[in-house]
Amino acid sequence: MTGSTQNCVSEEELYQTTLQWIAKRGVELKEIAELTFFLQKDYLPSLTLEECLENVKQVLKKREVQNAVLTGIQLDMLAERRQLEEPLLDMLVRDEGLYGIDEVLSMAILNVYGSIGLTNYGYIDRVKPGVLKRLNDKHDGEIHTFLDDIVGAIAASASSRLAHNRKQAPPD
Amino acid sequence: MTGSTQNCVSEEELYQTTLQWIAKRGVELKEIAELTFFLQKDYLPSLTLEECLENVKQVLKKREVQNAVLTGIQLDMLAERRQLEEPLLDMLVRDEGLYGIDEVLSMAILNVYGSIGLTNYGYIDRVKPGVLKRLNDKHDGEIHTFLDDIVGAIAASASSRLAHNRKQAPPD
Amino acid sequence: MTGSTQNCVSEEELYQTTLQWIAKRGVELKEIAELTFFLQKDYLPSLTLEECLENVKQVLKKREVQNAVLTGIQLDMLAERRQLEEPLLDMLVRDEGLYGIDEVLSMAILNVYGSIGLTNYGYIDRVKPGVLKRLNDKHDGEIHTFLDDIVGAIAASASSRLAHNRKQAPPD
Amino acid sequence: MTGSTQNCVSEEELYQTTLQWIAKRGVELKEIAELTFFLQKDYLPSLTLEECLENVKQVLKKREVQNAVLTGIQLDMLAERRQLEEPLLDMLVRDEGLYGIDEVLSMAILNVYGSIGLTNYGYIDRVKPGVLKRLNDKHDGEIHTFLDDIVGAIAASASSRLAHNRKQAPPD
Repeated sequence: MTGSTQNCVSEEELYQTTLQWIAKRGVELKEIAELTFFLQKDYLPSLTLEECLENVKQVLKKREVQNAVLTGIQLDMLAERRQLEEPLLDMLVRDEGLYGIDEVLSMAILNVYGSIGLTNYGYIDRVKPGVLKRLNDKHDGEIHTFLDDIVGAIAASASSRLAHNRKQAPPD
Repeated sequence: MTGSTQNCVSEEELYQTTLQWIAKRGVELKEIAELTFFLQKDYLPSLTLEECLENVKQVLKKREVQNAVLTGIQLDMLAERRQLEEPLLDMLVRDEGLYGIDEVLSMAILNVYGSIGLTNYGYIDRVKPGVLKRLNDKHDGEIHTFLDDIVGAIAASASSRLAHNRKQAPPD
Repeated sequence: MTGSTQNCVSEEELYQTTLQWIAKRGVELKEIAELTFFLQKDYLPSLTLEECLENVKQVLKKREVQNAVLTGIQLDMLAERRQLEEPLLDMLVRDEGLYGIDEVLSMAILNVYGSIGLTNYGYIDRVKPGVLKRLNDKHDGEIHTFLDDIVGAIAASASSRLAHNRKQAPPD
Repeated sequence: MTGSTQNCVSEEELYQTTLQWIAKRGVELKEIAELTFFLQKDYLPSLTLEECLENVKQVLKKREVQNAVLTGIQLDMLAERRQLEEPLLDMLVRDEGLYGIDEVLSMAILNVYGSIGLTNYGYIDRVKPGVLKRLNDKHDGEIHTFLDDIVGAIAASASSRLAHNRKQAPPD
């Protein structure tokens, strides 16, 4: 960010585009909401999947989150089409261990709701429940190096948002 | 954050306490608003000090910001009363160059409004306009090792908030 | 960091002090090394506890890490002695869910070795193996609101350091 | 980072590639060293440009820094060739004010040397001395939305590295 201050896309358009890009990559918002539910169900007995879904949507309305989603998905798609240059292409195709820019984008998402989402993000990124397992299967030629981390970060941020609104912490 | 999920202090009380701690340390919200105005005046000709002040107040309503303010001011006060142990005390009293936890707390504030406030924070922390100059004068025995960074971070965050609301970027 | 540029404590002294503070709070470096071993054993079959311990020590030689350790332990001790003011005292004593400055300090540790340690940090902070379980038991009057997160961050950073040195990623 | 742990490119090759990409985009390491010199000259009277250059090179040997440089430059080049999709393309071409992923990558660089480089980064990003002014001129069709922030972050990190090695803080 160092330049022009005029926006050409409306806020609502940017939100809708973000939802479309996520759908286009095969992820349903409901699946992200299920991750949030997985993270919180033992701590908030009255929690519903609908409430999780609503919080996921609110997270996706934040501009910083949209920026990270669009940039990450763009890089995944370019890697799939082999339109990145080496050695970057190889790092993304192999989801290389020492390449941490995917986590860096996830942090940008998590930070919007404060530091309390960090733990939940790390936990589901390692345990890989639900949609995260599918995104990590690499046998079908699809590349989700960024998206799997981003989906985890959105789910963890929705947990933080729930916690802040209920004045109750997410589990960790 | 790893534990109890019940809050004993209401949201409004916590906000009021945060304002009191800042006032107790000799900083007026108007002075923070002036920093925001300083950062933005060349880019938003119609900007008023009142609008800056309103944005400063909204920043201070965020829980993550309150946590950082209370923790930082507490450490400043303990350093003033020599109630910290060495070598930590000496680092804070001298505002030592390689001690960066004050910047770490500032980042926690800045991140809430996304990465676009970073530049403004760095700029005023070096140029030290207005209240920042006073907080850095060390001749009076007061210690503001944390507060000067925190005040800069609040002002820069208010700039980011302004930019997001006007759909217009803060200058950098 | 905004001020004096002269150091009064030598680098070696600061390292030794950091070790002493950790020991004084009842944590052995070997216990931190065990967390690193727990995180990596399935991925690096030849890994030894000694190698983990060596990496933990190297992490603790970083100035940014030392700053976070000393600041966090100081706040824990002040909370134990009830020398912090309300409402901050209560947040730390209860390890309140919406207080995230402990995670903020942990991030300062993790960032030194890049973003790849994030996941491991989140994972052990939730699973709480070994020493982390003990630090979270609150029945004995001790307060480790900061230390438990810091110990997890040191262990995860040692994992990242291992990964970078072996040119091999930590698991996640 | 969630996957393969084998590296196909040697550490030295990755360093050399990083230098080539920076050169290909029209930036000389000497110009980055001049930014570091600009930041530090008033505080370290004996400082030479050679010492700054050496510190810039050491910063560029860090894997996290290389990841950020390659990813950022790749995105700049794709934007120049119009190979990104809308609305992302437009944000990068216009260097849009509310797009902060360039700052997010810069933070990943800065964090490796701790929080003390933050202020210097923000300062030169706003004052835009030397090469930063050239990178921000948009009249020639070149796009450096990421590179200008990255160059500033490398220069500020080299300042932090200098400070840590001389046990003396960078100015702020």
